[in-house]
Amino acid sequence: MIPSNTSASTGLGDSMTGTAPVAAGRTDRVELANRVVNELGSELTPGAVSVEPGVVAGHAADQAPFGAVGAAVALVRARTVQDVQATLRFASRLGVPVVPQGTRTGISGGANAVDGCILLSVERMDSILEINTGEQTVTVEPGVINQTLKEALVPHGLAYPPDPGSVAICSIGGNVATNAGGLCCVKYGVTRDYVRELKVVLADGTLTRLGHRTAKGVAGLDLAGLFVGSEGTLGVVVEVTLRLVPLLPPPLTAVAAFATERAAASAVAAFMATGARPSMLESLDRHAIALLNEFGDFGLDAEAGALLMMQSNGDGHREAAEQEVAAFAATAEHHGALDVAFSTDPEDSDALVATRRMAQPAFERHAQAHGGGQLLDDVCLPRMALPEFYDRLETIRARTGLMIAVVAHAGDGNVHPSVFFDAQDPESTRQAHEAFEEIMDIGLQLGGTITGEHGVGSLKRAWLPRELDEGSRRLHRSIKDAVDPRGILNPGKQLAEL
Amino acid sequence: MIPSNTSASTGLGDSMTGTAPVAAGRTDRVELANRVVNELGSELTPGAVSVEPGVVAGHAADQAPFGAVGAAVALVRARTVQDVQATLRFASRLGVPVVPQGTRTGISGGANAVDGCILLSVERMDSILEINTGEQTVTVEPGVINQTLKEALVPHGLAYPPDPGSVAICSIGGNVATNAGGLCCVKYGVTRDYVRELKVVLADGTLTRLGHRTAKGVAGLDLAGLFVGSEGTLGVVVEVTLRLVPLLPPPLTAVAAFATERAAASAVAAFMATGARPSMLESLDRHAIALLNEFGDFGLDAEAGALLMMQSNGDGHREAAEQEVAAFAATAEHHGALDVAFSTDPEDSDALVATRRMAQPAFERHAQAHGGGQLLDDVCLPRMALPEFYDRLETIRARTGLMIAVVAHAGDGNVHPSVFFDAQDPESTRQAHEAFEEIMDIGLQLGGTITGEHGVGSLKRAWLPRELDEGSRRLHRSIKDAVDPRGILNPGKQLAEL
Repeated sequence: MIPSNTSASTGLGDSMTGTAPVAAGRTDRVELANRVVNELGSELTPGAVSVEPGVVAGHAADQAPFGAVGAAVALVRARTVQDVQATLRFASRLGVPVVPQGTRTGISGGANAVDGCILLSVERMDSILEINTGEQTVTVEPGVINQTLKEALVPHGLAYPPDPGSVAICSIGGNVATNAGGLCCVKYGVTRDYVRELKVVLADGTLTRLGHRTAKGVAGLDLAGLFVGSEGTLGVVVEVTLRLVPLLPPPLTAVAAFATERAAASAVAAFMATGARPSMLESLDRHAIALLNEFGDFGLDAEAGALLMMQSNGDGHREAAEQEVAAFAATAEHHGALDVAFSTDPEDSDALVATRRMAQPAFERHAQAHGGGQLLDDVCLPRMALPEFYDRLETIRARTGLMIAVVAHAGDGNVHPSVFFDAQDPESTRQAHEAFEEIMDIGLQLGGTITGEHGVGSLKRAWLPRELDEGSRRLHRSIKDAVDPRGILNPGKQLAEL
Repeated sequence: MIPSNTSASTGLGDSMTGTAPVAAGRTDRVELANRVVNELGSELTPGAVSVEPGVVAGHAADQAPFGAVGAAVALVRARTVQDVQATLRFASRLGVPVVPQGTRTGISGGANAVDGCILLSVERMDSILEINTGEQTVTVEPGVINQTLKEALVPHGLAYPPDPGSVAICSIGGNVATNAGGLCCVKYGVTRDYVRELKVVLADGTLTRLGHRTAKGVAGLDLAGLFVGSEGTLGVVVEVTLRLVPLLPPPLTAVAAFATERAAASAVAAFMATGARPSMLESLDRHAIALLNEFGDFGLDAEAGALLMMQSNGDGHREAAEQEVAAFAATAEHHGALDVAFSTDPEDSDALVATRRMAQPAFERHAQAHGGGQLLDDVCLPRMALPEFYDRLETIRARTGLMIAVVAHAGDGNVHPSVFFDAQDPESTRQAHEAFEEIMDIGLQLGGTITGEHGVGSLKRAWLPRELDEGSRRLHRSIKDAVDPRGILNPGKQLAEL
């Protein structure tokens, strides 16, 4: 179950380093740090470079619970496109690896340092450049926070739907790099569906414009799309133009309780097979319900084996939303729902979404109180395979005794099982990593993918070759080599083991 | 205005050949034809190969009105994936160019022969492999006709929206190759928005699977997206899995007449800036109206300077559709509409769409009666730039005296001006080509693209370098070289002059 040569099997808090094109010994590191300060620093916005070990180490990792974290040589906090260009020109000339970073809220290690690298943060490039109400687009620098953008759009009656769990703290640049999703995807799609044009700095420092600002365009290859989700391995995004939608109307809400995950999953599959377009369709299994109830009083039915949280906004038409909620209730009852509760109150709706978003803090609290270990997985399945997935998860629980709690963007078939373990206990740790990997294996067996939205990063790099066939692996390698011939961009990550 | 080294300036009916990696003289051609028959033919489904000059020449061109058409050596009509693989292995070994073809309904010369090539048609790979109602996806071979697919989905209550002008005769493989659009795009998006997974044969004959069948997926680079719109330059698509939507409800219809194109264009820009989601928003200028009225009795207002044809389906909610139609009427009137007519009758709706689809036949009839020349352009603009575009077109008309009729997917800013000319008159021909190119130039000046949906092919290959900056051109070249190192796939087309 554990692939050879994967950092995943090395345990939490491990500091194994990723593959870096330059193996920097101690003297090399000092010399490189000096050159970064003196040569590169002179080309950058004053104060952009830091080689102070505490500062650099403080930026060395994202939120991934395990995986390789190397020792970076320097941190560049770019303020301008020119800062990014100068850094990549410098790194390219010297063959120094560069790890692009947004706000480091990812959980797959995609922004983790590799040995001897320059960390290139675009967090401070955080201006909203243009809100174009006529074209219904917005142009931003990559460091703009997703929630900040959402709030800036409200006065214009516009919305940017993608809403990953980290919506309040993640950057648009990071969202583009990972093709981030969230709760809205079931109706509104993922980051890719909103990107019109990107400005990108290539490995050698060249600035280029990819995509188009118009509603349609087929002039050349879809290179903007290629860069979305490339996790910093092809270039550094320095400007993003996104299409927008009208401000989303307040939804109606329904919560359905089921005796079992299988019943809830069957209801999801059946409801989505009708072509329904809920604006949210989330699920919690019995463990997730229990951990939330431990964490606070959210009014969740403690007797339920699974809950579905559904919303419909009817694109602003109340009658349409009412019909969709009624259809959901009918499907849920047909699949054995114990109870379906409704609300038309926008505050109830906000509270429900807030509850769903509390799952991860609740999980973290539980982990902290029980040995510290939580591995959050991210598998996307054909929706019809959801019931089978929950059955298979139960066999892992039965075999290992591990607690595995599942929240899911159920309407998309995107499940997030969290495996809890005692990080001080090597056997518990080993079992948890094995379960984390077995979950991906089940995902592939059921026709799904090893990652629906969290990305490959360093965490799943050993698993990517299992999903892709040899032709696809070869295409990945040859395109990476063509775009980044010296291999300086985020080595040891997404594409490292293809 | 005319770029150097472009076939576009060489006139209609020209048989200049594209750049081919193998310059095949007469003897080479005979030898190659023999090897195709004897070596390749033995590996293929019996009857798949033809080297009969009449048959091969009959398949040498798509519907492009001008541009290079070379002399092909052979035609392979693949029936199986293995046929495609064997053909590419053979061509790769010998360094013979391969031109992939669907039903050759494209109008940019993307499927035109190049000298010494093998034409590889997937027209006969035309099976619908699986309609998956649970996942709301369909898997097809590339030769399936778009309209055939639509009809097969109806009994399942499902729809595949993309609907290019050639919907009744174009293939899904060709739609993927060109990222085809149509009337529906304003609400439903383009082919790219529906492609989940592709099976593709690479230049060396390797079969690979790209993308994913699930609703979401971020495992690796978005290579399925890269292949959509690559016009046969990266590989040959042999299987396509598409997401579907519920069968589209019958729309309500409105037709608004304006005194001028500028007024109609202003109404479009203003209406779309409200976040409206009409299921169709087309425009006809006064010349298009006149040519349609010459062609048949469609009841079009002969006094109008421009017409907007709008439909709304309200996603199946009548009230929503009624509100949207009313909002459109209000905007149209605010922008000086002379008249707005409504219909709730599905037959009227069908008739309106049919009328819109008659524009091209009407244009062809006019061209045949007036010297034979029609150049159909395809520029996509920011919608707010539409009024300015029509003004600039008027200056071309005034300067040249040419008739230029415009139909447009106005809601997307995607305009299709047709330049009419006397193909027997070199001066008229020259002027028309110059106007065709000036239209692209205006498109770029106004922040648009040289092609919204028709593609680059051979027709616009000299223009692609004007739209893309040097960084993007270099990326295109290096990716093409990486994926097709011998350059056998559709040379002389989309990427030829980058």
